[in-house]
Amino acid sequence: MELVPNNSLKCATPEEGRQLAVNLALQTAFAIQPDGQVEHIIRDAYANNPDSIIAASHVVATEFATVAAANNYWR
Amino acid sequence: MELVPNNSLKCATPEEGRQLAVNLALQTAFAIQPDGQVEHIIRDAYANNPDSIIAASHVVATEFATVAAANNYWR
Amino acid sequence: MELVPNNSLKCATPEEGRQLAVNLALQTAFAIQPDGQVEHIIRDAYANNPDSIIAASHVVATEFATVAAANNYWR
Amino acid sequence: MELVPNNSLKCATPEEGRQLAVNLALQTAFAIQPDGQVEHIIRDAYANNPDSIIAASHVVATEFATVAAANNYWR
Amino acid sequence: MELVPNNSLKCATPEEGRQLAVNLALQTAFAIQPDGQVEHIIRDAYANNPDSIIAASHVVATEFATVAAANNYWR
Amino acid sequence: MELVPNNSLKCATPEEGRQLAVNLALQTAFAIQPDGQVEHIIRDAYANNPDSIIAASHVVATEFATVAAANNYWR
Repeated sequence: MELVPNNSLKCATPEEGRQLAVNLALQTAFAIQPDGQVEHIIRDAYANNPDSIIAASHVVATEFATVAAANNYWR
Repeated sequence: MELVPNNSLKCATPEEGRQLAVNLALQTAFAIQPDGQVEHIIRDAYANNPDSIIAASHVVATEFATVAAANNYWR
Repeated sequence: MELVPNNSLKCATPEEGRQLAVNLALQTAFAIQPDGQVEHIIRDAYANNPDSIIAASHVVATEFATVAAANNYWR
Repeated sequence: MELVPNNSLKCATPEEGRQLAVNLALQTAFAIQPDGQVEHIIRDAYANNPDSIIAASHVVATEFATVAAANNYWR
Repeated sequence: MELVPNNSLKCATPEEGRQLAVNLALQTAFAIQPDGQVEHIIRDAYANNPDSIIAASHVVATEFATVAAANNYWR
Repeated sequence: MELVPNNSLKCATPEEGRQLAVNLALQTAFAIQPDGQVEHIIRDAYANNPDSIIAASHVVATEFATVAAANNYWR
């Protein structure tokens, strides 16, 4: 299972970088719990539990900090 | 769905940077859970659950750290 | 609603920087949930729920990391 | 109420820096909730709730990251 | 018990770096609670509790930030 | 009570650095709650509550980020 799409943190724009951060955050669940059922229980949490969504947003924010630094903040 | 408004982290002032951080934090919920219902359950959590608001504030603080670094802290 | 007092991260001393971090952390609640009732439910949480206070302290610590870096740690 | 002891992040050693991080973390509770009762409910949480202690340890770790960077890691 | 595989943070690619971050995050549980039973209760949590998976993803994101910085973001 | 073993963040290898991060994370509990009983309630949490272990792993990850930066990532 590929953890980092295209095996690179290089992104042309902040939008691409943000999408990579979302993918990294969501991918990790499958690396931690490979069985197929995990996608279902996480989707369900996102549909019904606001605190799960906020917690996932925090993971995305942490990943985005790394991706942005890797791309020198697209300066 | 646009994740990063204007596809840029460049902000003229800390106030603009803070607003971007709030938008990034709140936008992520829709990237994670695209169905329209998510806005409703999150608004409800913010109206009634202080811990949800504090958790969301932590996401904003993490996003702001990235935006501030991207703008060299407006030095 | 002003998110960053004086639209600046510049603080003369660590004490001023710490106060700014506390203000930034607490202000965000009103940016996320503008209705007046939020102050009341957050005050109530801080009066009775130690975990809410600890969680809020973590937001302040994250904001202070940004403010301290912005002021080059007052070296 | 003084938030940053001696209004400085300068510490001679990592041990002093660690103590400052603990103080900053614990002090914030009183800045957020000034009424005297907060010390009591937080002490009680630390005596009985391991997750409160772990959460507080995370605040200390975040503060220590800032204090260590401020002192250039005592290199 | 070895905490850091090959006692090095050096990784040739982001994919390797991500795998190291996952290993570091999962290994810590055994350093904190050495008794064999911990693997079982954590696996169970990952199978049934989405918030545990999201919290573990946040640990991976924090470890990845360190590994990526250690490898200069594979620039 | 000594908070930072040998009053130094200097570690020869990543493995030593990781062990220091684990010690720093676990030590803080005793700095926050000095009474002897805290070790018992934390051990119990680690034996039975996966979310406590994940939360503690997050503290270790945050401490390791500081220790790794202090040692210039053992480059």
